[in-house]
Amino acid sequence: MSLALKNHIEKIVSLTDEEFKYVLSFFTKKKLQKHQFLIASGAPVQTDHFVLKGLLKATYTNDEGKQHILQFAMEDWWVTDYQAYFLQTNATLNIDCLENSEVLCLTLENREKLCRELQKIEHFFRIKTSMGFVAQQQRILSLLNKDAKGRYNQLLEQYPQLLQRVPKTILAAYLGVTRETLSRL
Amino acid sequence: MSLALKNHIEKIVSLTDEEFKYVLSFFTKKKLQKHQFLIASGAPVQTDHFVLKGLLKATYTNDEGKQHILQFAMEDWWVTDYQAYFLQTNATLNIDCLENSEVLCLTLENREKLCRELQKIEHFFRIKTSMGFVAQQQRILSLLNKDAKGRYNQLLEQYPQLLQRVPKTILAAYLGVTRETLSRL
Repeated sequence: MSLALKNHIEKIVSLTDEEFKYVLSFFTKKKLQKHQFLIASGAPVQTDHFVLKGLLKATYTNDEGKQHILQFAMEDWWVTDYQAYFLQTNATLNIDCLENSEVLCLTLENREKLCRELQKIEHFFRIKTSMGFVAQQQRILSLLNKDAKGRYNQLLEQYPQLLQRVPKTILAAYLGVTRETLSRL
Repeated sequence: MSLALKNHIEKIVSLTDEEFKYVLSFFTKKKLQKHQFLIASGAPVQTDHFVLKGLLKATYTNDEGKQHILQFAMEDWWVTDYQAYFLQTNATLNIDCLENSEVLCLTLENREKLCRELQKIEHFFRIKTSMGFVAQQQRILSLLNKDAKGRYNQLLEQYPQLLQRVPKTILAAYLGVTRETLSRL
Protein backbone atom coordinates (compact mmCIF):
# COMPACT_ATOMS: atom_id res chain seq x y z
CA MET A 1 0.00 0.00 0.00
CA SER A 2 3.01 2.29 0.45
CA LEU A 3 3.07 2.19 -3.35
CA ALA A 4 0.49 4.98 -2.98
CA LEU A 5 3.25 7.19 -1.54
CA LYS A 6 5.60 6.32 -4.40
CA ASN A 7 2.94 7.17 -7.00
CA HIS A 8 2.17 10.37 -5.11
CA ILE A 9 5.80 11.52 -5.02
CA GLU A 10 6.33 10.51 -8.64
CA LYS A 11 3.68 12.96 -9.76
CA ILE A 12 6.43 15.50 -9.02
CA VAL A 13 9.81 13.69 -9.12
CA SER A 14 10.84 10.21 -10.23
CA LEU A 15 12.63 7.95 -7.76
CA THR A 16 14.56 4.73 -8.26
CA ASP A 17 13.31 1.73 -6.25
CA GLU A 18 16.41 2.11 -4.06
CA GLU A 19 15.66 5.77 -3.41
CA PHE A 20 12.04 5.10 -2.59
CA LYS A 21 13.01 2.30 -0.20
CA TYR A 22 15.28 4.77 1.55
CA VAL A 23 12.56 7.47 1.65
CA LEU A 24 10.02 4.99 3.04
CA SER A 25 12.41 3.99 5.83
CA PHE A 26 11.85 7.46 7.33
CA PHE A 27 8.11 6.88 7.73
CA THR A 28 6.21 4.83 10.29
CA LYS A 29 2.74 3.40 9.68
CA LYS A 30 -0.18 4.04 12.02
CA LYS A 31 -3.66 2.52 12.03
CA LEU A 32 -6.56 4.39 13.60
CA GLN A 33 -10.15 3.47 14.34
CA LYS A 34 -13.12 5.62 13.38
CA HIS A 35 -13.48 8.43 16.00
CA GLN A 36 -9.87 8.00 17.16
CA PHE A 37 -7.71 11.15 17.44
CA LEU A 38 -4.54 11.53 15.38
CA ILE A 39 -3.78 14.96 16.89
CA ALA A 40 -5.21 16.25 20.17
CA SER A 41 -5.37 19.96 20.93
CA GLY A 42 -2.84 20.91 23.63
CA ALA A 43 -0.46 18.00 22.97
CA PRO A 44 2.86 18.21 21.08
CA VAL A 45 2.71 17.44 17.34
CA GLN A 46 5.46 14.99 16.43
CA THR A 47 4.55 14.06 12.87
CA ASP A 48 3.09 15.02 9.50
CA HIS A 49 0.84 12.36 7.92
CA PHE A 50 0.26 10.98 4.46
CA VAL A 51 -3.15 9.29 4.29
CA LEU A 52 -3.03 5.74 2.87
CA LYS A 53 -6.64 4.91 3.65
CA GLY A 54 -9.60 6.53 5.35
CA LEU A 55 -10.97 9.99 6.02
CA LEU A 56 -10.04 12.50 8.71
CA LYS A 57 -11.11 15.98 9.73
CA ALA A 58 -9.09 18.81 11.28
CA THR A 59 -11.08 21.08 13.59
CA TYR A 60 -10.58 24.10 15.79
CA THR A 61 -12.72 24.62 18.89
CA ASN A 62 -12.89 28.21 20.16
CA ASP A 63 -13.13 29.45 23.76
CA GLU A 64 -16.93 29.30 23.62
CA GLY A 65 -16.81 25.65 22.57
CA LYS A 66 -17.87 26.28 18.97
CA GLN A 67 -16.16 23.85 16.56
CA HIS A 68 -14.90 24.97 13.13
CA ILE A 69 -13.79 22.50 10.47
CA LEU A 70 -10.52 23.57 8.87
CA GLN A 71 -10.07 20.71 6.42
CA PHE A 72 -10.76 17.11 5.52
CA ALA A 73 -8.12 14.61 4.45
CA MET A 74 -8.49 11.36 2.55
CA GLU A 75 -6.28 9.04 0.46
CA ASP A 76 -3.17 10.81 -0.96
CA TRP A 77 -3.66 13.93 1.17
CA TRP A 78 -1.31 15.20 3.86
CA VAL A 79 -2.65 16.34 7.20
CA THR A 80 -1.30 17.60 10.50
CA ASP A 81 -1.46 20.76 12.65
CA TYR A 82 1.17 22.49 10.50
CA GLN A 83 1.71 25.45 12.78
CA ALA A 84 2.43 23.14 15.72
CA TYR A 85 4.48 20.75 13.54
CA PHE A 86 6.73 23.36 11.94
CA LEU A 87 7.14 25.51 15.04
CA GLN A 88 7.29 22.47 17.36
CA THR A 89 4.61 23.85 19.65
CA ASN A 90 1.48 22.21 21.05
CA ALA A 91 -1.51 21.57 18.81
CA THR A 92 -4.35 24.09 18.62
CA LEU A 93 -6.28 21.73 16.32
CA ASN A 94 -7.91 18.35 16.82
CA ILE A 95 -7.62 15.80 14.02
CA ASP A 96 -9.87 12.76 14.25
CA CYS A 97 -11.02 9.93 12.02
CA LEU A 98 -14.39 9.87 10.24
CA GLU A 99 -13.53 6.35 8.99
CA ASN A 100 -10.99 3.70 10.02
CA SER A 101 -7.75 5.13 8.68
CA GLU A 102 -4.12 4.32 7.95
CA VAL A 103 -1.45 6.98 7.72
CA LEU A 104 2.31 7.18 7.15
CA CYS A 105 3.96 9.42 9.78
CA LEU A 106 7.02 11.62 9.24
CA THR A 107 8.75 13.52 12.05
CA LEU A 108 10.07 17.02 11.33
CA GLU A 109 13.59 15.81 12.05
CA ASN A 110 13.24 13.02 9.47
CA ARG A 111 11.65 15.37 6.97
CA GLU A 112 14.57 17.80 7.25
CA LYS A 113 17.13 14.97 7.11
CA LEU A 114 15.50 13.51 3.99
CA CYS A 115 15.39 16.92 2.34
CA ARG A 116 19.08 17.54 3.10
CA GLU A 117 20.13 14.16 1.79
CA LEU A 118 17.94 13.90 -1.30
CA GLN A 119 17.34 17.13 -3.20
CA LYS A 120 14.57 15.33 -5.13
CA ILE A 121 12.63 15.13 -1.87
CA GLU A 122 13.33 18.76 -1.00
CA HIS A 123 12.01 19.58 -4.47
CA PHE A 124 8.94 17.38 -3.92
CA PHE A 125 8.03 19.11 -0.65
CA ARG A 126 8.67 22.57 -2.09
CA ILE A 127 6.32 21.98 -5.02
CA LYS A 128 3.75 20.16 -2.86
CA THR A 129 3.73 23.01 -0.33
CA SER A 130 3.40 25.60 -3.10
CA MET A 131 0.31 23.78 -4.38
CA GLY A 132 -1.03 23.62 -0.81
CA PHE A 133 -0.43 27.35 -0.48
CA VAL A 134 -2.46 27.99 -3.64
CA ALA A 135 -5.30 25.76 -2.40
CA GLN A 136 -5.36 27.66 0.92
CA GLN A 137 -5.52 30.96 -0.95
CA GLN A 138 -8.51 29.66 -2.92
CA ARG A 139 -10.15 28.60 0.37
CA ILE A 140 -9.63 32.14 1.76
CA LEU A 141 -11.15 33.69 -1.38
CA SER A 142 -14.08 31.30 -1.18
CA LEU A 143 -14.64 32.22 2.51
CA LEU A 144 -14.45 35.93 1.66
CA ASN A 145 -16.55 35.79 -1.44
CA LYS A 146 -18.82 32.78 -1.72
CA ASP A 147 -22.00 31.99 0.16
CA ALA A 148 -22.75 28.43 1.38
CA LYS A 149 -24.17 27.44 -2.01
CA GLY A 150 -21.05 28.67 -3.79
CA ARG A 151 -18.78 26.83 -1.35
CA TYR A 152 -20.87 23.66 -1.74
CA ASN A 153 -20.63 23.80 -5.53
CA GLN A 154 -16.89 24.42 -5.38
CA LEU A 155 -16.44 21.38 -3.12
CA LEU A 156 -18.65 19.31 -5.41
CA GLU A 157 -16.54 20.30 -8.39
CA GLN A 158 -13.14 19.82 -6.75
CA TYR A 159 -13.77 16.75 -4.60
CA PRO A 160 -16.95 14.89 -5.61
CA GLN A 161 -15.81 11.72 -3.74
CA LEU A 162 -15.43 13.70 -0.54
CA LEU A 163 -19.09 14.73 -0.59
CA GLN A 164 -20.14 11.08 -0.78
CA ARG A 165 -18.12 10.11 2.28
CA VAL A 166 -18.50 13.01 4.72
CA PRO A 167 -21.58 12.72 6.99
CA LYS A 168 -24.14 15.41 6.17
CA THR A 169 -24.09 17.03 9.63
CA ILE A 170 -20.31 17.48 9.38
CA LEU A 171 -20.52 18.75 5.82
CA ALA A 172 -23.07 21.33 7.01
CA ALA A 173 -20.64 22.42 9.76
CA TYR A 174 -17.82 22.73 7.20
CA LEU A 175 -19.99 24.96 5.01
CA GLY A 176 -21.26 26.92 8.00
CA VAL A 177 -24.95 26.13 7.42
CA THR A 178 -27.63 24.10 9.20
CA ARG A 179 -28.39 20.51 8.21
CA GLU A 180 -31.73 21.74 6.74
CA THR A 181 -30.06 24.38 4.56
CA LEU A 182 -27.64 21.73 3.27
CA SER A 183 -30.56 19.52 2.16
CA ARG A 184 -31.85 22.42 0.05
CA LEU A 185 -28.42 22.78 -1.62
CA MET B 1 18.93 47.93 -1.23
CA SER B 2 19.09 44.38 -2.55
CA LEU B 3 20.92 43.75 0.72
CA ALA B 4 17.38 43.41 2.07
CA LEU B 5 16.96 40.26 -0.04
CA LYS B 6 20.28 38.86 1.23
CA ASN B 7 19.29 39.47 4.85
CA HIS B 8 15.88 37.96 4.14
CA ILE B 9 17.30 34.76 2.61
CA GLU B 10 19.94 34.51 5.35
CA LYS B 11 17.25 34.20 8.00
CA ILE B 12 16.92 30.68 6.54
CA VAL B 13 20.22 29.80 4.76
CA SER B 14 23.60 31.52 4.65
CA LEU B 15 25.03 32.48 1.26
CA THR B 16 28.54 33.51 0.24
CA ASP B 17 28.81 36.92 -1.50
CA GLU B 18 29.46 35.03 -4.73
CA GLU B 19 26.33 32.92 -4.32
CA PHE B 20 24.17 35.92 -3.49
CA LYS B 21 25.49 37.80 -6.53
CA TYR B 22 24.47 34.82 -8.63
CA VAL B 23 21.03 34.60 -7.00
CA LEU B 24 20.46 38.33 -7.50
CA SER B 25 21.30 38.04 -11.21
CA PHE B 26 18.02 36.10 -11.63
CA PHE B 27 15.92 39.03 -10.38
CA THR B 28 14.93 42.25 -12.13
CA LYS B 29 14.02 45.43 -10.29
CA LYS B 30 10.75 47.28 -10.90
CA LYS B 31 9.60 50.67 -9.59
CA LEU B 32 5.91 51.45 -9.30
CA GLN B 33 3.98 54.60 -8.48
CA LYS B 34 1.21 54.76 -5.90
CA HIS B 35 -2.03 53.39 -7.49
CA GLN B 36 -0.06 51.58 -10.24
CA PHE B 37 -0.92 47.91 -10.89
CA LEU B 38 1.71 45.19 -10.47
CA ILE B 39 -0.74 42.45 -11.50
CA ALA B 40 -3.94 43.03 -13.47
CA SER B 41 -6.77 40.52 -13.39
CA GLY B 42 -7.07 38.68 -16.72
CA ALA B 43 -3.44 39.16 -17.75
CA PRO B 44 -0.69 36.50 -17.57
CA VAL B 45 1.42 36.50 -14.39
CA GLN B 46 5.10 36.35 -15.28
CA THR B 47 6.77 36.97 -11.95
CA ASP B 48 6.77 36.59 -8.17
CA HIS B 49 7.85 39.73 -6.27
CA PHE B 50 9.96 40.50 -3.22
CA VAL B 51 9.04 43.92 -1.85
CA LEU B 52 12.06 46.19 -1.30
CA LYS B 53 10.05 49.30 -0.51
CA GLY B 54 6.40 50.32 -0.33
CA LEU B 55 3.04 48.78 0.34
CA LEU B 56 0.75 46.81 -1.97
CA LYS B 57 -2.62 45.14 -1.75
CA ALA B 58 -3.92 42.01 -3.50
CA THR B 59 -7.66 42.05 -4.18
CA TYR B 60 -10.32 39.91 -5.79
CA THR B 61 -13.37 41.46 -7.42
CA ASN B 62 -16.37 39.17 -7.80
CA ASP B 63 -18.95 39.09 -10.61
CA GLU B 64 -21.12 41.64 -8.80
CA GLY B 65 -18.19 44.05 -8.58
CA LYS B 66 -17.61 43.60 -4.84
CA GLN B 67 -13.92 43.84 -3.96
CA HIS B 68 -12.30 41.56 -1.35
CA ILE B 69 -8.83 42.17 0.02
CA LEU B 70 -6.79 38.98 0.12
CA GLN B 71 -3.54 40.34 1.54
CA PHE B 72 -1.23 43.28 1.98
CA ALA B 73 2.50 43.23 1.25
CA MET B 74 5.25 45.53 2.49
CA GLU B 75 9.04 45.41 2.88
CA ASP B 76 10.44 41.83 3.02
CA TRP B 77 7.15 40.25 1.96
CA TRP B 78 6.54 38.28 -1.22
CA VAL B 79 3.47 38.91 -3.32
CA THR B 80 1.95 37.72 -6.59
CA ASP B 81 -1.15 35.88 -7.79
CA TYR B 82 0.32 32.49 -6.81
CA GLN B 83 -2.32 30.38 -8.51
CA ALA B 84 -1.71 32.15 -11.81
CA TYR B 85 2.08 32.20 -11.27
CA PHE B 86 2.50 28.51 -10.42
CA LEU B 87 -0.06 27.22 -12.93
CA GLN B 88 0.94 29.79 -15.58
CA THR B 89 -2.62 30.95 -16.11
CA ASN B 90 -4.12 34.43 -16.18
CA ALA B 91 -4.51 36.45 -13.00
CA THR B 92 -7.79 36.38 -11.08
CA LEU B 93 -6.39 38.96 -8.64
CA ASN B 94 -5.43 42.61 -8.93
CA ILE B 95 -2.33 43.78 -7.09
CA ASP B 96 -1.83 47.54 -6.83
CA CYS B 97 0.32 49.97 -4.87
CA LEU B 98 -0.89 51.86 -1.80
CA GLU B 99 2.47 53.68 -1.75
CA ASN B 100 5.29 54.20 -4.28
CA SER B 101 6.95 50.78 -4.33
CA GLU B 102 10.01 48.89 -5.49
CA VAL B 103 10.03 45.14 -6.02
CA LEU B 104 12.45 42.46 -7.19
CA CYS B 105 10.82 40.23 -9.83
CA LEU B 106 11.51 36.51 -10.35
CA THR B 107 10.05 34.50 -13.23
CA LEU B 108 8.90 30.93 -12.55
CA GLU B 109 11.53 29.68 -15.02
CA ASN B 110 14.28 31.49 -13.11
CA ARG B 111 12.93 30.32 -9.76
CA GLU B 112 13.02 26.69 -10.91
CA LYS B 113 16.48 27.09 -12.47
CA LEU B 114 17.85 28.67 -9.28
CA CYS B 115 16.32 25.90 -7.16
CA ARG B 116 17.82 23.21 -9.39
CA GLU B 117 21.26 24.78 -9.34
CA LEU B 118 21.49 25.81 -5.71
CA GLN B 119 19.90 23.48 -3.18
CA LYS B 120 20.25 26.24 -0.57
CA ILE B 121 17.70 28.25 -2.57
CA GLU B 122 15.39 25.27 -2.99
CA HIS B 123 15.64 24.88 0.80
CA PHE B 124 14.93 28.59 1.30
CA PHE B 125 11.77 28.52 -0.81
CA ARG B 126 10.57 25.27 0.78
CA ILE B 127 10.86 26.69 4.29
CA LYS B 128 9.47 30.09 3.25
CA THR B 129 6.46 28.47 1.57
CA SER B 130 5.85 26.26 4.61
CA MET B 131 5.72 29.37 6.79
CA GLY B 132 3.38 31.02 4.27
CA PHE B 133 1.16 27.93 4.39
CA VAL B 134 0.96 28.21 8.19
CA ALA B 135 0.11 31.92 7.97
CA GLN B 136 -2.67 31.16 5.46
CA GLN B 137 -4.06 28.48 7.76
CA GLN B 138 -4.15 31.03 10.60
CA ARG B 139 -5.95 33.46 8.28
CA ILE B 140 -8.56 30.77 7.48
CA LEU B 141 -9.07 30.04 11.19
CA SER B 142 -9.41 33.74 11.90
CA LEU B 143 -12.01 34.09 9.11
CA LEU B 144 -13.92 31.07 10.43
CA ASN B 145 -13.71 31.97 14.06
CA LYS B 146 -13.01 35.61 14.79
CA ASP B 147 -15.29 38.60 14.44
CA ALA B 148 -13.99 41.92 13.06
CA LYS B 149 -12.68 42.96 16.48
CA GLY B 150 -10.77 39.70 16.85
CA ARG B 151 -9.30 40.04 13.36
CA TYR B 152 -8.33 43.65 14.07
CA ASN B 153 -6.56 42.68 17.31
CA GLN B 154 -4.74 39.84 15.58
CA LEU B 155 -3.52 42.21 12.86
CA LEU B 156 -2.48 44.76 15.49
CA GLU B 157 -0.48 42.11 17.31
CA GLN B 158 1.16 40.55 14.25
CA TYR B 159 1.79 43.63 12.10
CA PRO B 160 1.50 46.88 14.09
CA GLN B 161 3.42 48.83 11.37
CA LEU B 162 0.90 47.71 8.76
CA LEU B 163 -1.98 49.31 10.64
CA GLN B 164 -0.17 52.65 10.66
CA ARG B 165 0.31 52.62 6.89
CA VAL B 166 -2.92 51.19 5.45
CA PRO B 167 -5.64 53.82 4.82
CA LYS B 168 -8.58 53.34 7.20
CA THR B 169 -11.18 52.74 4.43
CA ILE B 170 -9.04 49.93 3.02
CA LEU B 171 -8.37 48.46 6.44
CA ALA B 172 -12.15 48.42 7.03
CA ALA B 173 -12.62 46.55 3.73
CA TYR B 174 -9.94 44.02 4.73
CA LEU B 175 -11.71 43.39 8.04
CA GLY B 176 -15.11 43.31 6.35
CA VAL B 177 -16.59 46.17 8.39
CA THR B 178 -17.72 49.73 7.69
CA ARG B 179 -15.41 52.70 8.26
CA GLU B 180 -17.58 53.65 11.28
CA THR B 181 -17.30 50.22 12.91
CA LEU B 182 -13.50 50.37 12.43
CA SER B 183 -13.35 53.70 14.34
CA ARG B 184 -15.06 51.99 17.28
CA LEU B 185 -12.44 49.19 17.24
